[in-house]
Amino acid sequence: MHYYLAVRQFARTLRILDTLLEKATKHAEARKFDVNNFCAMRLFPDMLPFLVQVRIACDTAKATAANISGKEAPTHEDTETTVPELRARIAKCLAYLDTFTAADFERTRPDTLVRLPNRPGKAIAADEYLWGRQIPNFYFHVTTAYDLLRHGGVELGKSDYLGPLAFVDV
Amino acid sequence: MHYYLAVRQFARTLRILDTLLEKATKHAEARKFDVNNFCAMRLFPDMLPFLVQVRIACDTAKATAANISGKEAPTHEDTETTVPELRARIAKCLAYLDTFTAADFERTRPDTLVRLPNRPGKAIAADEYLWGRQIPNFYFHVTTAYDLLRHGGVELGKSDYLGPLAFVDV
Repeated sequence: MHYYLAVRQFARTLRILDTLLEKATKHAEARKFDVNNFCAMRLFPDMLPFLVQVRIACDTAKATAANISGKEAPTHEDTETTVPELRARIAKCLAYLDTFTAADFERTRPDTLVRLPNRPGKAIAADEYLWGRQIPNFYFHVTTAYDLLRHGGVELGKSDYLGPLAFVDV
Repeated sequence: MHYYLAVRQFARTLRILDTLLEKATKHAEARKFDVNNFCAMRLFPDMLPFLVQVRIACDTAKATAANISGKEAPTHEDTETTVPELRARIAKCLAYLDTFTAADFERTRPDTLVRLPNRPGKAIAADEYLWGRQIPNFYFHVTTAYDLLRHGGVELGKSDYLGPLAFVDV
């Protein structure tokens, strides 16, 4: 069931995002600046700041799980202003994602119409929603958060973003 | 069959990436600078330049289709130095992806071991490969290419990255 796989992978990547924030915190400590300075960073003046990139990554994962399974997502208020608060937001989102099991997506078919709370009167087929919107959108915001940290000098590499992978000997 | 869905979505996003390059070209013309100046841009000195972000996006899509279906991917030489050449690289990758059908992935199971040409002696389960590596990696490079264009002043927004979505009235 690929809907559940997607939600589990989003959770995995949010855990990775949390480790990126932890590394940014250590980097800032070592360089003796306030890690929260990252929160307002943007790659261009009309782009969203780091803080919002992290929030939207969380909300995209949360909305995917809720909307595809036909549940109502909890509201997570946008009150964070610091990196520790962003890490708490990630933890709150992960706790929600961890309530899901494969059974929650058993009745969903590729053409099941998914209703979005922020688009009254509109719906989208589950597969189009997952593949065409939620997956690209989720990785957009995680990657842009990563890019902002890299742009700001945090020592990260691709393996930090991908995380460990289960290769086997053959 | 989510393997085929992934490949089709990668193709869709590569077409979107091509439109981003087209918009960058028009932007550069209007501002009277050489669009190829984007090719060497990086968000930090030890990150890969724009040119390589686009190449790896293409190669990730190509490798996903080939490796999961057990085919040998064609070699696309890394010879591009200009934006028009990058667009030709995208077109070449799309032509390859368009040779695939759902039938190419029919025998692949979640735990089918996928061998990677650049990792001799190693293999990875098809689902781990797709969800844990190829999907996050593909969108990483497309998003970083987008971020570099935005950072360089090209007028783009999220809807340019996501492309049109098939919402219906309910």
